[in-house]
Amino acid sequence: MIKRQDHRHNKPAHQNRPNNFAKQEPEKTDRLDMLINKATGLISGNKPATALNTSRYTASRQNLRIIPMGGVEEVGENMTVLEFGDDLIVIDMGLAFPDDTMPGIDYIIPDTKWLEENKRRIRGVIITHGHLDHIGAVPYILPKIGDPPVYTMGLTAAFIKKRLEEFGLLGRSKIHTLTKDDVLTLGNFKVRFFRLNHSIPDSVGLCITTPVGQIVYATDWKFDHTPADGKPTEFDKIAKFGAEGVTLLMSDSTNATKPGYCASEREIGLTIDRTFADIKGRIIFANFSTNISRIQQVFDSAAKYNRKVIVTGRSLVNNIEIALSLGYLKIQPKIIIKSEIAKKFPDSQILILTTGAQGEEAAGLARIARGDHKTVKIKKGDTTIVSASPIPGNERAISAMLSNLTRLGSHVIYNKTLDIHTSGHAHQEELKLMMALVKPKFFMPIHGEHHMIVAHADLARTMGIADDRIFALDNGQILEITSAQDAKVTEDSKISSGYVFIDGLGIGDVGEVVIRDRQVMAQDGMFVIIMTLDRRTGKLINQADIISRGFIYMKGNDDLIREVKHEVRKLVESKGKEKLEPNYAYLRNIVRDEIGEYLYQKTERRPMVLPVVIEI
Amino acid sequence: MIKRQDHRHNKPAHQNRPNNFAKQEPEKTDRLDMLINKATGLISGNKPATALNTSRYTASRQNLRIIPMGGVEEVGENMTVLEFGDDLIVIDMGLAFPDDTMPGIDYIIPDTKWLEENKRRIRGVIITHGHLDHIGAVPYILPKIGDPPVYTMGLTAAFIKKRLEEFGLLGRSKIHTLTKDDVLTLGNFKVRFFRLNHSIPDSVGLCITTPVGQIVYATDWKFDHTPADGKPTEFDKIAKFGAEGVTLLMSDSTNATKPGYCASEREIGLTIDRTFADIKGRIIFANFSTNISRIQQVFDSAAKYNRKVIVTGRSLVNNIEIALSLGYLKIQPKIIIKSEIAKKFPDSQILILTTGAQGEEAAGLARIARGDHKTVKIKKGDTTIVSASPIPGNERAISAMLSNLTRLGSHVIYNKTLDIHTSGHAHQEELKLMMALVKPKFFMPIHGEHHMIVAHADLARTMGIADDRIFALDNGQILEITSAQDAKVTEDSKISSGYVFIDGLGIGDVGEVVIRDRQVMAQDGMFVIIMTLDRRTGKLINQADIISRGFIYMKGNDDLIREVKHEVRKLVESKGKEKLEPNYAYLRNIVRDEIGEYLYQKTERRPMVLPVVIEI
Repeated sequence: MIKRQDHRHNKPAHQNRPNNFAKQEPEKTDRLDMLINKATGLISGNKPATALNTSRYTASRQNLRIIPMGGVEEVGENMTVLEFGDDLIVIDMGLAFPDDTMPGIDYIIPDTKWLEENKRRIRGVIITHGHLDHIGAVPYILPKIGDPPVYTMGLTAAFIKKRLEEFGLLGRSKIHTLTKDDVLTLGNFKVRFFRLNHSIPDSVGLCITTPVGQIVYATDWKFDHTPADGKPTEFDKIAKFGAEGVTLLMSDSTNATKPGYCASEREIGLTIDRTFADIKGRIIFANFSTNISRIQQVFDSAAKYNRKVIVTGRSLVNNIEIALSLGYLKIQPKIIIKSEIAKKFPDSQILILTTGAQGEEAAGLARIARGDHKTVKIKKGDTTIVSASPIPGNERAISAMLSNLTRLGSHVIYNKTLDIHTSGHAHQEELKLMMALVKPKFFMPIHGEHHMIVAHADLARTMGIADDRIFALDNGQILEITSAQDAKVTEDSKISSGYVFIDGLGIGDVGEVVIRDRQVMAQDGMFVIIMTLDRRTGKLINQADIISRGFIYMKGNDDLIREVKHEVRKLVESKGKEKLEPNYAYLRNIVRDEIGEYLYQKTERRPMVLPVVIEI
Repeated sequence: MIKRQDHRHNKPAHQNRPNNFAKQEPEKTDRLDMLINKATGLISGNKPATALNTSRYTASRQNLRIIPMGGVEEVGENMTVLEFGDDLIVIDMGLAFPDDTMPGIDYIIPDTKWLEENKRRIRGVIITHGHLDHIGAVPYILPKIGDPPVYTMGLTAAFIKKRLEEFGLLGRSKIHTLTKDDVLTLGNFKVRFFRLNHSIPDSVGLCITTPVGQIVYATDWKFDHTPADGKPTEFDKIAKFGAEGVTLLMSDSTNATKPGYCASEREIGLTIDRTFADIKGRIIFANFSTNISRIQQVFDSAAKYNRKVIVTGRSLVNNIEIALSLGYLKIQPKIIIKSEIAKKFPDSQILILTTGAQGEEAAGLARIARGDHKTVKIKKGDTTIVSASPIPGNERAISAMLSNLTRLGSHVIYNKTLDIHTSGHAHQEELKLMMALVKPKFFMPIHGEHHMIVAHADLARTMGIADDRIFALDNGQILEITSAQDAKVTEDSKISSGYVFIDGLGIGDVGEVVIRDRQVMAQDGMFVIIMTLDRRTGKLINQADIISRGFIYMKGNDDLIREVKHEVRKLVESKGKEKLEPNYAYLRNIVRDEIGEYLYQKTERRPMVLPVVIEI
């Protein structure tokens, strides 16, 4: 009766697999070496990388190791580690959202036990863009790995700082703001950047020069020749890296199953504009709070049609403030108004910008749809535009939210009815073009569930990359590159990996057992049987007490409860005469099994049966 | 922490709203009248309807009442009641599948309390086609409403009989098999049929002649000029009804938000055929067990490419048997083989047909993907084709299943990668064409969540149907038609309606309270505190006992448990001195609140806290 439990490649939190890799690692780095090495982490604006005496670590492994810590078995929790000699660099630190096999869980982050053990070798953390699946785990992981320096672009840096501030962690790790033409040297790694398009500005890919060749890390991306911010992909740089020679391409598989090209943000902007032209009443516009490009288009169209904008939602206000202050968003003066003065304007001059396009229960739009938003109440004549594709699993919540909105009298426009959203992830033709430009020797599809990863691997095959040069890894598996010609997955070693669940204040304290118990209780409830026994005779002092929730409505089922009490008495009396070991483990097992079976016979449900013995 | 609870228009099971309607109903029908009237339920092949002396019921209401019992607030549980005078007819009896706000529930059926009270007036049940959202509730509801006669087409009748047989109910209601050109008279209603296209053969729409005009009931349908069975929609009949004059059109809203036309089954057939041509290894093909058209196409292409077919899955085997025996499916002799002899054939000559395209955990494909199917084990070189669109809410389970399949070495092809499925529901252009043909005076969109119903109403408006002639009802609301010119929703009366949950053997015994408890325990688990008190002194005899599941891993949290026990002792001691009422309700409340708050402070989780007092 546990639904879907087995559908996913289940991974308990903090399940520590044998850590072969750590064992093989020579523990020779002393503190002085560390300090010297750390000092070589330099940022050089457009200058060639500082030459590094890698021979200092001759005893260390001279292979490049690439370890996806997360993001190759799921959408989200993207994080990759590169290791050469004694140096480690970390790329991205994302979180994932739980699915319905993980009830009560807030977020999932990668298991970083191995990284914690090796934290002194971390030369830096590079973040490619500001989405939660790339920055969300930063406040959870940075403190555990010694607060290493973070290197990223301007908008991403601002988002990370805001997040660290919320967690009271600002000022621990140094957050370095780079530009896309900087060259960053971190130990054995020289990192160059190239602009990519995605649904947030300042997204960059990486070209990482290592002693065994260059690695191109294409994070979440698409090719958009007409992006909302007018800044297209730096094809010239990508082509240049390709010409220099690239050993390995790592690239985004999110849309690897989708044919053709991803629509341009500009096309969506035109649709939004045409849609606004026809709307008479108020507009409620919901999208991701990080989609600064879409937000720009909404402000542009609002200005064009003479609408004032009310912004509601903490994350949206924060992100707009950051984007405005750094110049990533350009809006008309005084176009933003407070909700209190909205009454001064006719409905045709009001636009309400909010979050919650995925149906998230705590976000603005869901609250508006439930009628419990503080300032926004739907009225007849409103039009709500939901500008997002549902993240798999959210479809039903979104659909229910849309129905709540129509029930309150709003019109709804969403992606099914009109193309008012485009993905930020490349489709098949773009993925192939990336391979054609980069011309990698080896290929590793990243970012996606396993079937997306495999679809991307299939595409690579059609591009002429031989099967034995394509590596579809699991989280924690290691790709070892010994030269520009030689790469292999180290079959027998894998670092500790898995999901760490965040639930309330707990990080990793909810594991497999707790989750399974939640699933069982969600399905059929629980049934506690309290037996108060006389210590000397082993006999029941009172009738058994029954506490049950989520199983059956107790008040209507007196007969069943009475029969259960009767059965329990019979069991205690028949077993009570036998020798009872401490804790009454045998009696409790019998009661669990027999009453469980009894309840199943009567109801075809299997509540969690919990026998308790109180000895007086 | 209860997720999504408020997203849907929540409807407790068996929540009986004030039953105004029943009160207004004159209770004058005597037993003789009933018998006479029942005898007028005649089937007349192509003959005009038997004239009925409706004046016999002059004291009865002379209005037509149309009551959607289910299906206008959700996808599924379709059921509609028509009432005129003393006669009731029921159209369809479907079930719906639960969403993730209803943990542990197997199915949902409409609340039929009102119908049970009026069962002696039911003249017959008409079923439009054999899908579960139209026949699924038949075995649950028929026995409760006096086993009335059922009227339907051949394939549907066979599916219903099979279902009744499984429930041990065969032989109670008489199941009449009609043809689409029959005319059925049931009391005040004369019913004619017209063939529609849908993803199952023998789907029919209804044209119901009533004393106040004709009602066209367009059930789940689309227009397919090239359906797999070569039997297109009977446009001539629809146009004829339109010419005769139609008072009300009721029509399917499932795809009312989708522009354009629904793809023809034939196009899908061609894609399937081309796909088969390229596959070298075994093919595993999963689709709905009721989609006989798709199954026909799979058998055709299998024959063409010289593949034998192994059929796995009870419902699929049943349905294929029924469809073959009635001639709805035509296959090559000996093309079906048993799995035991599959070894005799090379992989290129094997096709495995199974169910579970929605990721249902108990179905064939999910079992194959988990590697625990009895006879089918995935091997490298297999290709799995999933021919279905995800029903909202199933996306994540499907995606996880696809990943399990690729992990085992199978290629996967599904609707995102190739058009190997089309919907059975009309898109906007088809919906408009239906309105143009029927030219109804009034319009009622049915079958869909509220926002789909509203989208369909919007379409009707663009077709020139005035706002006050379009009726978007809730389940249980009543549309009253007094003449061909006059219809209105009876604002203040509504029959009892709502969801009845099926969970194991229980029908309707899981209500709002049980569901809410399951949700709470799924989120944060439960925490039972057993206090054994001395009856005389009100003091704790032992330390409190704590039983907790799904909250926190107990073994790693001894400190927390110890502190809770300490807090409980303090609470009992401070409150114990006060006068304690029977049952210790006051003490239990205090403990629940204080310990609940204490646990929240420590963990930011809110498990269900259940204090129990045992008095010795």
